[in-house]
Amino acid sequence: MSWEENVRKVVPYAAGEQPKKEKMIKLNTNECPYPPSPMVARAASLMDLGDLRLYPDYNAEILVESLAEYHDVRRENIFVGVGSDDVLAMAFLAFFDGDRPVLFPDVTYSFYDVWADLYRIPYKLCPLSEDWHMRKEDYFGENGGIIFPNPNAPTGVLESAAFVEDIVRENPDVVVIVDEAYIDFGGESVLPLINQYENLLVVQTFSKSRAMAGARIGAAFGSEKLIRYLDDVKFSINSYTMNLPAQVMGAEAVKDDVYFRDLVKRIVRTREYSKERLKDLGFTFTDSMANFIFATHSRIPAKQIYEALKGVDIYVRYFNKPRIDDYLRITIGTDTEMESLFTFLEKYLSANGGNEN
Amino acid sequence: MSWEENVRKVVPYAAGEQPKKEKMIKLNTNECPYPPSPMVARAASLMDLGDLRLYPDYNAEILVESLAEYHDVRRENIFVGVGSDDVLAMAFLAFFDGDRPVLFPDVTYSFYDVWADLYRIPYKLCPLSEDWHMRKEDYFGENGGIIFPNPNAPTGVLESAAFVEDIVRENPDVVVIVDEAYIDFGGESVLPLINQYENLLVVQTFSKSRAMAGARIGAAFGSEKLIRYLDDVKFSINSYTMNLPAQVMGAEAVKDDVYFRDLVKRIVRTREYSKERLKDLGFTFTDSMANFIFATHSRIPAKQIYEALKGVDIYVRYFNKPRIDDYLRITIGTDTEMESLFTFLEKYLSANGGNEN
Repeated sequence: MSWEENVRKVVPYAAGEQPKKEKMIKLNTNECPYPPSPMVARAASLMDLGDLRLYPDYNAEILVESLAEYHDVRRENIFVGVGSDDVLAMAFLAFFDGDRPVLFPDVTYSFYDVWADLYRIPYKLCPLSEDWHMRKEDYFGENGGIIFPNPNAPTGVLESAAFVEDIVRENPDVVVIVDEAYIDFGGESVLPLINQYENLLVVQTFSKSRAMAGARIGAAFGSEKLIRYLDDVKFSINSYTMNLPAQVMGAEAVKDDVYFRDLVKRIVRTREYSKERLKDLGFTFTDSMANFIFATHSRIPAKQIYEALKGVDIYVRYFNKPRIDDYLRITIGTDTEMESLFTFLEKYLSANGGNEN
Repeated sequence: MSWEENVRKVVPYAAGEQPKKEKMIKLNTNECPYPPSPMVARAASLMDLGDLRLYPDYNAEILVESLAEYHDVRRENIFVGVGSDDVLAMAFLAFFDGDRPVLFPDVTYSFYDVWADLYRIPYKLCPLSEDWHMRKEDYFGENGGIIFPNPNAPTGVLESAAFVEDIVRENPDVVVIVDEAYIDFGGESVLPLINQYENLLVVQTFSKSRAMAGARIGAAFGSEKLIRYLDDVKFSINSYTMNLPAQVMGAEAVKDDVYFRDLVKRIVRTREYSKERLKDLGFTFTDSMANFIFATHSRIPAKQIYEALKGVDIYVRYFNKPRIDDYLRITIGTDTEMESLFTFLEKYLSANGGNEN
C-alpha cells in the first residue's frame, strides 16, 4: 500500500480566472471597481510594523468592535474570518454534522457542494423556479441544515426578508445560514433577526461592497450560542487567523460609512444603466440586486460571447454547468469599463447577424 | 430535537495568554523580541492599497518564488498558508484520513490532538524518554501517519537530521510531517530530503525566526505530488487565504537574509547566556535548540514561580499537563528583558529559601 491511499481526494472549487494583463477589463470575479476608503490607506500608513513580531489579537477586537457598533449588536454576536469563505467553511464544519442532508438551491454559489464533499456532509439540491426564485416550501421538510445566498449568486435574484424569515422560523431544529455577500447592493439584510432566532447565522464579506477582497475579511452574525460554537471550531484549527493589517484596515473601513454608501450608490447606478444597455443589445436577464448582471443573449450562445470578449481582454464569468451554460455573469465595473464592454458587444453582435432579437 | 444536537463539539486549543499591558515582559508565546527586517516596512509603504479591491493572488506567487529561490527548490514543492497552524491543520485533513492511528510524542505541540479530534482522526501518543528524546523505534510500527516538531515543543529538544530521516525512510506508506517551527535556532532542517522522499512534508513558519507572527505566514515543503494534494484541500476550503500585505511583506522578509541571520544569532547568544544564569539560580533544563528554555526549579514548584512572575507582569508559559506540570517554558526575549527576569528570580528565590539547590 502507498501513502496516497490515505489522502482525502477532493474536487476543489474553481475560482474565476485571474489573468494579469496590463490593460484588461476585469468583470469576472465581482470585485469592486473602486478602491477602499482612503481611511484604510491612512490606517495602514500609521500602523507600527514592528508589532508584526507579535501574534495578532486572536479575537480581532478592534474589527469586531467596529462591526458591533455599526450593526448595533453585541461583540458576542460576531465572528470574523479570512474572507467569508473561511467563515462559511467553518460554519459547514461546525453546524452541518448530521446524517440528514443539508439543503441549498441547485443554482447557487459553487463552493457549497465542495465544502459538503470535503467534510463528508450529505446534501440535497432544491431546484430554483423557472424565473430563478427559491421555492420556500422546498425548505420546509426534514433536513440537516440550510444555506443560501441572498441575493443568490450567480443569478442576482433577491428574496425578501419576510421570505427568509419564514424559512428560518420553519426550521428551529437546524442552523440556517444566509450568505449575504451581495446584500448591500439592494437587498434587506436579516441581520436584525439574529436576536429573535437562535439558529440564524448571517454571513457578510468585505470583498464586494467594501472594496477589500485583497484584505480577506468576512464576518458572521448570530446568537451568542451559535458564535461560541463557531469560535470553538475556529480555535481548533488556527488560533490566529486574521493578521494585523487586516484587523487595522478592516476596522477603519467600517467607520467610513459616508464613503461606503456613496460607493454602493455608484455601483447600483451603473448596474441599472447597464441593464438598459444590455436590453438594447438583445440580452435578457434577471433583475439583479447584486454587483453583477446574469444575462443571456437571444441569438448568440453565451460561451461564444464569453470567448469573443476574452479575445479583446474583457473578462466576464462563464459557468459550464447545467441550467446556466447559456448565461454570462458580468460584474459591474466603472462607467468607462462598462462603456468599453457595450461598444465591443455592439460591434460584435452586429457583425454576427445584427443586434435585433 | 434542537439545532444544537448536530453541532460538532470540540475542545479547542488554548493559546498562551495575550495580556495587553503597557509595560509587561512577554516571554510566553515564543515571539521574536526584535522587529522584522526593515525591508518589510519598506515594502508595506510602497504597496498600492487601491489594489485591495482585487482578490489577492491565490497562488501567492511572489512569496512562493522568494521561498523557492531561498531554499533552492521548485515552486511546485511549496505550499503557503495563514501561519503554520493553517498549513498543519490542512495537512491533517488531507493526509491523515485512515483508520490506523497517527503517531506523535506524548509531550509535544498541543494542537496535534486538537486537530485529530476535530477531524475524527485516531491517534496514538508515543512517550518521550526520560531525557525528553523521541524513541525512534516507536515510529517504526503500523500507523496512519506521523507528525512531530523538531526541535520539539515545549521541550526544545532537537533530533538529528539522520534520526528524522530514519523515521521517514521506515514509513514509505504514510505521510511524515516534520514541524520545523524552531529549526532556525540551532537545528539542521530536513528540507533538502523532500527530493528524495515523496512522503515527507516539512513545515516552517514566519512567526518565530522571521519575527512576523502578526502577518500570519507558514509554509510547507514537499514532493510535487504531496503539495498538489494539499492545494486541492486548500482550494476546497478557501481559494484566497493569504492577503495582499502578507504576500508582499513575506516575500521581502525572505530576501533580507543578512538581517535574518543576525537576528537568529542574537537570539541564540541570549539563549546560551540565559542557560548559565538559570543554572546559577537552581534551574535545570533541556539543552534547548529553540527560542525558548524549558526549565524546572530544584526547590520551588513551576506553577508558583509562574504566578509570582505574572504578579510583576512577566509572562512565561505554564502547562498544567501530565509530565510537564513542574516546568516553565520561557521565551528568549531581549537581553534587557532577560535581565529583568533574572533580577526578579534572584530576589524571589532568595526570599523563598535561598538560590541554592
